[in-house]
Amino acid sequence: MKSIRLSFLLFFLFLGNIQAQVLTSPGQTLQMKFALTEAGEPLYLVNLNNQPVVLPSKLGFDLKNDDIDLLDGFQITKTENSTFDETWTPVWGEESQIRNHYNELMVELTQTKTGRKMVIRFRAFDEGLGFRYEFPLQEDMGYFVVKEEKTQFAMTGDHVAFWIPGDYDTQEYDFTESKLSEIRGLMKTAITPNASQTPFSDTGVQTSLIMKSADGLYINLHEAALIDYPAMHLELDDEQMIFTSHLTPDAIGDKGYLYTPAQTPWRTIIAGKKAGNILASRITYNLNEPSKIEDPSWIKPMKYVGVWWEMITGKSSWSYTNDYKAIKLGETDYSKASPNGTHGATTENVKKYIDFAAKHGFDGVLVEGWNVGWEDWFGNSKDYVFDFLTPYPDFDLKGISAYAKEKGVQMIMHHETSSSVRNYERHMDEAYQLMKDYGYPAVKSGYVGDMLPRGEYHYSQWLVNHYQYAIEKAAEYQIMVNAHEAVRPTGVGRTWPNLIANESARGTEYQAFGGSKANHVTILPFTRQIGGPMDYTPGVFEMDVFNGSHVNSTLANQLALYVTMYSPLQMAADFPENYDRFPDAFQFIKDVALDWEKSLYLEAEPGYFLTIARKAKGTGEWFVGNVNGMDRRTGEVKFDFLESGKTYIAEIYGDKTDAHFKTNPQAYEIRKVAVDSNSVLKQFSAPGGGYAIRIRAAGKEELKGLKKLK
Amino acid sequence: MKSIRLSFLLFFLFLGNIQAQVLTSPGQTLQMKFALTEAGEPLYLVNLNNQPVVLPSKLGFDLKNDDIDLLDGFQITKTENSTFDETWTPVWGEESQIRNHYNELMVELTQTKTGRKMVIRFRAFDEGLGFRYEFPLQEDMGYFVVKEEKTQFAMTGDHVAFWIPGDYDTQEYDFTESKLSEIRGLMKTAITPNASQTPFSDTGVQTSLIMKSADGLYINLHEAALIDYPAMHLELDDEQMIFTSHLTPDAIGDKGYLYTPAQTPWRTIIAGKKAGNILASRITYNLNEPSKIEDPSWIKPMKYVGVWWEMITGKSSWSYTNDYKAIKLGETDYSKASPNGTHGATTENVKKYIDFAAKHGFDGVLVEGWNVGWEDWFGNSKDYVFDFLTPYPDFDLKGISAYAKEKGVQMIMHHETSSSVRNYERHMDEAYQLMKDYGYPAVKSGYVGDMLPRGEYHYSQWLVNHYQYAIEKAAEYQIMVNAHEAVRPTGVGRTWPNLIANESARGTEYQAFGGSKANHVTILPFTRQIGGPMDYTPGVFEMDVFNGSHVNSTLANQLALYVTMYSPLQMAADFPENYDRFPDAFQFIKDVALDWEKSLYLEAEPGYFLTIARKAKGTGEWFVGNVNGMDRRTGEVKFDFLESGKTYIAEIYGDKTDAHFKTNPQAYEIRKVAVDSNSVLKQFSAPGGGYAIRIRAAGKEELKGLKKLK
Repeated sequence: MKSIRLSFLLFFLFLGNIQAQVLTSPGQTLQMKFALTEAGEPLYLVNLNNQPVVLPSKLGFDLKNDDIDLLDGFQITKTENSTFDETWTPVWGEESQIRNHYNELMVELTQTKTGRKMVIRFRAFDEGLGFRYEFPLQEDMGYFVVKEEKTQFAMTGDHVAFWIPGDYDTQEYDFTESKLSEIRGLMKTAITPNASQTPFSDTGVQTSLIMKSADGLYINLHEAALIDYPAMHLELDDEQMIFTSHLTPDAIGDKGYLYTPAQTPWRTIIAGKKAGNILASRITYNLNEPSKIEDPSWIKPMKYVGVWWEMITGKSSWSYTNDYKAIKLGETDYSKASPNGTHGATTENVKKYIDFAAKHGFDGVLVEGWNVGWEDWFGNSKDYVFDFLTPYPDFDLKGISAYAKEKGVQMIMHHETSSSVRNYERHMDEAYQLMKDYGYPAVKSGYVGDMLPRGEYHYSQWLVNHYQYAIEKAAEYQIMVNAHEAVRPTGVGRTWPNLIANESARGTEYQAFGGSKANHVTILPFTRQIGGPMDYTPGVFEMDVFNGSHVNSTLANQLALYVTMYSPLQMAADFPENYDRFPDAFQFIKDVALDWEKSLYLEAEPGYFLTIARKAKGTGEWFVGNVNGMDRRTGEVKFDFLESGKTYIAEIYGDKTDAHFKTNPQAYEIRKVAVDSNSVLKQFSAPGGGYAIRIRAAGKEELKGLKKLK
Repeated sequence: MKSIRLSFLLFFLFLGNIQAQVLTSPGQTLQMKFALTEAGEPLYLVNLNNQPVVLPSKLGFDLKNDDIDLLDGFQITKTENSTFDETWTPVWGEESQIRNHYNELMVELTQTKTGRKMVIRFRAFDEGLGFRYEFPLQEDMGYFVVKEEKTQFAMTGDHVAFWIPGDYDTQEYDFTESKLSEIRGLMKTAITPNASQTPFSDTGVQTSLIMKSADGLYINLHEAALIDYPAMHLELDDEQMIFTSHLTPDAIGDKGYLYTPAQTPWRTIIAGKKAGNILASRITYNLNEPSKIEDPSWIKPMKYVGVWWEMITGKSSWSYTNDYKAIKLGETDYSKASPNGTHGATTENVKKYIDFAAKHGFDGVLVEGWNVGWEDWFGNSKDYVFDFLTPYPDFDLKGISAYAKEKGVQMIMHHETSSSVRNYERHMDEAYQLMKDYGYPAVKSGYVGDMLPRGEYHYSQWLVNHYQYAIEKAAEYQIMVNAHEAVRPTGVGRTWPNLIANESARGTEYQAFGGSKANHVTILPFTRQIGGPMDYTPGVFEMDVFNGSHVNSTLANQLALYVTMYSPLQMAADFPENYDRFPDAFQFIKDVALDWEKSLYLEAEPGYFLTIARKAKGTGEWFVGNVNGMDRRTGEVKFDFLESGKTYIAEIYGDKTDAHFKTNPQAYEIRKVAVDSNSVLKQFSAPGGGYAIRIRAAGKEELKGLKKLK
């Protein structure tokens, strides 16, 4: 392969007359080398345990309106080494304490011809590397426009990747598993329809990208701290097997507008011999700034139900009436409209959900379609599409809020913007204030459809800036944000923990839009979730949904998602009546924790299986979740993470042996066994199946008669 | 000329087998005929006193994403005739009562193939025609995107026009006087540099456009009630002499996004045998909706001075420091910056202006450069460029407000947006609230430079919507708006009288940027001011300004502008010290009224001369202003507008006979004469000169010894 030859050629430069800067991680596992070529081009490479992860790769920028780009002609004018070790406490997370331990190399480059200074800051963690570009305040560089960032990630071979098409507007694709060399041929099939989509090349893919090398190394490429900069995609040179950064452009084709002092987000490379190493890494959070919310006591994980799945499955509508072809907010008189009879967000229906939430101990109820404007919200490039303030005539905002409060349940607000972001910003203060007035602690925001301002993309700097604006503005109002169709997260939830979740990938809704691949959920934790929690909305018990679509998952798999798909915001998406049909299985959703002291990645193979054990914050209970790919599989859980000498009850919710995501999804069985730290569980998972386990300390009385797992 | 042949061919259709709808104005002077061609294309023509003004011209739209445009295949399915006569009272204006008298023809067209309905509503006034397209709520038409509006205005010949280049971003051009056929050849010279400009064609010109036909007919083309629609330019077919509407596109090249029920702005054709007829027309206001501000008592004309001309002429700077290449608002510490020593908006300097305003009876003081961010505000496509809230360290916001209040002067706020309109909208509520807190009744807003969102233009629907948003939001705070570099006005000041002025043309500032043509101000009333008042900022007494530029105007001409350039907001732009040098001339600026009971257009020839007499509201005083073109001229004022039998004192501020805008601009003379309704004044005007007259009732004592003008 030519690529390997070229990259290795560059590699030998490091051994030759070019003197490299070497950065090693605290535990000596990871090594980064930096050097300049003879032409003054910056190069870096990454090794993990002496095995190449990234071959020598170039760094730099194409600039707009500048004769000389930031690609070559550099000299190293300063370097600084430092080390950092700190343990911090996240507001919510997969563990209650996170260690941020790295060695840092700062390389100051000066471009001889222009005098411009560009700093590259590398942080070597034991499991990966983060680096970013910095442009210090300087005489010779003020404002500049990035035409393209030219950061390379040269792979060592034709890895297997789980990829989605590079796209400026959506991440809502099923993953394709293929060799890198096969991407080009598979791109067309991989690009499935979406409400807004702008794929940009035959070999462009998105981050976070998970790959596996022929010799079993797992590699993840992503970015951290995406603030006021366009989201990065990866453009593959599939001869050389080199990825180059490809930023999301704005309406006139430019990428980033910067002025010194400035910096890019961090580019991250996480690698491990075990797939679980990728999941255990906290690099993405660690490369973000500490929380800017001084008192985060109002940020609380929530388990919720909602008036949502009925619209997604076509049983109800967001809209109130079918009378009008187009709505003029403030002019259209809804009181004169005839109700369509399918509106989901009626006071009566919402109260049913509130009752259900109260009865089963849920924290919140989300209601979509509560506000006027849904009759023509989509596909019309409508500017003034929602006001986020005015309820439909059959949604008693005040009465519902009072009712929920009385029942001890909190309402979750919904702000679909229809991607008319100016309109959203215009109403944002009033809309957030309305939430405060009625006691809504969290908002689910949505960005469905093509962007307004027209010509902008979901992931351009303009929009990245908007999502951030919404988060920070919400923080002023002590509101938690769960943004859907926004740019995928990059660990910003550390800095702004009120960003409690995002969608930014194919969520459960696609199971009602024709179905996602049954192994989808075995990949998401390695890709989408590297940047932060996903509001995946699991918990569907009835797989054959109203509109005829089929949910490609077993019921036990749905339960497992509450453990495997980390989120401090977890929905139980299905209808109350479906939960009432399976009260024993529903019990797990009621029991499962939302916030964790510790997480262990027991078994992991993206696309195939994933087993995670998590210890709940406060209660001492453990939960285990396993999601399975397309093939029948019996996995193993060693309970050695339990406190030794103690006996626990394990409540196991698993697939029956004849379960199958397609043909027999509701075949689950629940059993209780006694376990201790020596126990080992062999547990079957059906295709598209899995299992969920609750493990709790138990008194002797309860243990009596229970079989002890050896 | 081919054009004439073609248009006349169409004209004969009206006489042939096609039956035309005929609409005649109330006074029978104006006639409009409407018909469909055999292909079902809508056609209209306009005659004034049986003389053709607009030859048969087509109407319709190119639509995006529609197979069938709205250009042909129509049938007339309904027509309605009506008449309207109402007199209304503007909040401010050139007269205290405005008669809105027209006959209306509504033509409902149905497109046979699509079933779509399009209404064209014509309003025939005695001096002109307004028409617009309406799209009623209908089953077959909901949302649609206008690719181009195809409204034709077929001229009868190769008229002389006073035109500026069609441009999506600026109107700040000097006018070119030429035949229509000469536009193409002159376009390149006509396009002079601007901070943001996007000319679009060799024969594209802007409205409001004034023309004169070979047989002496004056014709003005413009639009009224531009709301949520792109601004219209005119593309000339210079063989056929047909103008076709050319709308301002958005970032992706589309023009207008509409949904039924919808309507376009009104397209206006004003015509008259005398140029003054154009100025006397109130069609533009009449075609706008009545005021939406119920209690307009807070809207008051203002005469003001300000810290502005010193920056324009380069004597002072907007910025506070030269220390920083780029400013990060909220991060840059101004308290550590060294002042550049040229900052204009210092507390001390502002107080000087407040003192001056108080001493001479001015209502307000405008201060530019008071707020942080001016160091890098221009040309950097900077998003967060101003916060509109934070004063510079040397501008004592609180102290200045208190000082002004104590002196009985009101402060005028300045919001330069640098065309970063999202940023402005984000801060708008707080910025307006700050104004309320400190008692600022009016804001001058600015939109210098290329637009953000990038790719949008100053005159696109997106921005038209923004300017309107700012006006309506300001009205909520009872704030008057004077928007600079915004879209040119179209009479919206009737509906939102808090829009007290606009710039939207070359203002006096260009006299400090190399100078405007000396006859510029004889054209503006026929073009720019057809849509509303202009904040022209006259009153410059020292023509040789700091930066070496020369103001192409005599001092007497500067005085006349307070009468000829109607605006309820009038600045005295020059420095206090320059007014102190000419206290006798300055007296006129102090005396002149701002709001009028009646206006008479005594003599008018665009490009050459203009004399207007106006009666002040309340006081009974009259003011006359004359501005002159490039040639010496002696004009005539008949005082027959005065109450007969009464004798008045006329204070005449005129050019000396050796005055000249270039060589001798300060050669003025002031004389007082007695006048009555029989008096006739012969008054000299120098090149670029003019005169200003105050006429007031006087007691016998005062008249004693005064020469009586016969």
